[in-house]
Amino acid sequence: MKVAGRPYRTIWPSTDGQAVEIIDQTRLPHALVTVRLATLDDAARAIRDMLVRGAPLIGATAAWGIWLAVRADPSDESLAQAHASLLATRPTAVNLRWALDRARARLQPLRAGERAAAARQLAVEVCDEDVALNRGIAAAGLPLICALAARKPAGHPVQILTHCNAGWLATVDVGTATAPIYAAYDAGVPIHVWVDETRPRNQGASLTAWELLHHGVPHTVIADNAGGHLMQRGQVDLVIVGTDRTTATGDVCNKIGTYLKALAARDNGVPFYVAAPSPSIDWSIGDGLRRIPIEERSARELSHLAGRLPDGSVATIALLPDGSPAANPAFDVTPARLVTGLITERGVCAATTAGLRELFPDRAGVAEEPTR
Amino acid sequence: MKVAGRPYRTIWPSTDGQAVEIIDQTRLPHALVTVRLATLDDAARAIRDMLVRGAPLIGATAAWGIWLAVRADPSDESLAQAHASLLATRPTAVNLRWALDRARARLQPLRAGERAAAARQLAVEVCDEDVALNRGIAAAGLPLICALAARKPAGHPVQILTHCNAGWLATVDVGTATAPIYAAYDAGVPIHVWVDETRPRNQGASLTAWELLHHGVPHTVIADNAGGHLMQRGQVDLVIVGTDRTTATGDVCNKIGTYLKALAARDNGVPFYVAAPSPSIDWSIGDGLRRIPIEERSARELSHLAGRLPDGSVATIALLPDGSPAANPAFDVTPARLVTGLITERGVCAATTAGLRELFPDRAGVAEEPTR
Repeated sequence: MKVAGRPYRTIWPSTDGQAVEIIDQTRLPHALVTVRLATLDDAARAIRDMLVRGAPLIGATAAWGIWLAVRADPSDESLAQAHASLLATRPTAVNLRWALDRARARLQPLRAGERAAAARQLAVEVCDEDVALNRGIAAAGLPLICALAARKPAGHPVQILTHCNAGWLATVDVGTATAPIYAAYDAGVPIHVWVDETRPRNQGASLTAWELLHHGVPHTVIADNAGGHLMQRGQVDLVIVGTDRTTATGDVCNKIGTYLKALAARDNGVPFYVAAPSPSIDWSIGDGLRRIPIEERSARELSHLAGRLPDGSVATIALLPDGSPAANPAFDVTPARLVTGLITERGVCAATTAGLRELFPDRAGVAEEPTR
Repeated sequence: MKVAGRPYRTIWPSTDGQAVEIIDQTRLPHALVTVRLATLDDAARAIRDMLVRGAPLIGATAAWGIWLAVRADPSDESLAQAHASLLATRPTAVNLRWALDRARARLQPLRAGERAAAARQLAVEVCDEDVALNRGIAAAGLPLICALAARKPAGHPVQILTHCNAGWLATVDVGTATAPIYAAYDAGVPIHVWVDETRPRNQGASLTAWELLHHGVPHTVIADNAGGHLMQRGQVDLVIVGTDRTTATGDVCNKIGTYLKALAARDNGVPFYVAAPSPSIDWSIGDGLRRIPIEERSARELSHLAGRLPDGSVATIALLPDGSPAANPAFDVTPARLVTGLITERGVCAATTAGLRELFPDRAGVAEEPTR
């Protein structure tokens, strides 16, 4: 998408062909800084230290990391070591394993001398496929927004609430939850986005707001606490969020707090959609509440926060009394019963086993009981 | 309650009898600083700049402010001007008008020479009555916690979640939502409190955590996003929150985000109680969603945040991209249907017109329709 009028992706091959470049997302929203990844270690560090984040972008960065590894050393040992070290960077991301297993399966049968070129080709494919998936979600989701726009009085934008960052910064481009939003904006449909700041890491305030601002999409940042109130007052027409993992029955594991917004949406009759590219769907499990382990992240993410001082420098402040502990579960599970629909690259479906099977008859479903 | 073993109130007459002293709550949790209020302007500024906050403490500070005014000038004009200037400090607080009207009614019939002593006596009364109300809430709420404790296995504390600060810092002492909590802790009932940080002003992280820490109550600070997840996992036995205004039908206007926790509590079968001293009950209205105006506070409360730098000094950082707007509704309304019960100084009742009438047959009820 655009930053100051110029199109960007989140990851791209450097012009000298010797490395890849990324936007360092730990510096946003205070500075737009690009970083060059020239080695496997650079790529692993970029994922581990969250210079890149978001399941699709993590997968893409891993694919480029494999290229950086086999370009330096195309041996079997090097490939195995690259797979292992990249896999260890983040515990939850489904796309990470998916991209790495795919790279290994593609490269292992090849002679060493062919591997670098094949790895590069695969990384390009992984990136382009992600963008194609997201354009599919955009096409599937745009009619939902257009239908709401048709019912609004003139001059009243469609009010969309989103949580965390499932934007182009979480993917290679376009985003998942933001895909229909950018499609509507680019098509001239009047929209306004409520951006949950998304404590504790503030991905909404730091990333979603930044990307909407720079692409030109009207938006307003709100506290995570405010969404229910806005729905009660009729100020939200539609919720669209992303998903880190979707079960075969339609349960959605996404950033902590998503469940609370789904409850408020149901209580107020607001449609609650989840942008779910098929790689986010875990066909092997049904009951998300019982089966999806929730990452407990560092308490420091809650107790400390970085931001801009008046002089423009970035500083980290402590928020809690010295001695008060903090807990930081990073995700929650929204039961399928609260989800109006899943927006996939193949269209919109009910968040049910049957709904998913209809769109993805080629994927194995499970027959586990749905979450209560 | 106690700070480092020493009992404190939030407001008290200075030992020289010439002023009142308060804890400057804008400095918490980073420093415990007391401030001397010697004039009407000092008192008005303390309320307006939120050195004191919380409806009961605002009322108490206003009562002391009247004393400071009439002590300096006991004329009718001075009394009227003090009433007006204190009333203008905060738009929402019900207790503010209540304390000021009570002071005016008590002092106006008196001769000028009698007013200072009567105003002082009234301020003492307002403070002591607040503490008595809160001790009533403690007595009414303690059995709820004891009943839960009786059902827990040995070594498992009762898990209580609270939102914002309805603690002793919001009152003269003891607090409202915290009253049963301190009573349970002081009685040796094993408890643990989940403290919502309560964005955007972080009263949970700054004030509730601080007061629990210093009184010795086990607690953990969480993001506002986390409560629903904890309830899904069976890690919350009870929610107790405060209220800024309770309608005659049991709707509860409290800090923004309270409604989301009430939804999650209902979805998970967790009891959701509101500590509601009778001065917080507005007997004149029924439908809180339609009738209670919601204060929209400065966007800066969301876009900027103060905390401790590594050197111990306090700094304010900016969180949003330059150019992203923010909205900051400060309260929301939890419909009575989501409230398990109201804990008042006269006992626990259903959050219904009938429930409130039974405890308060002496107050006028209204016959408005309940909130949907």
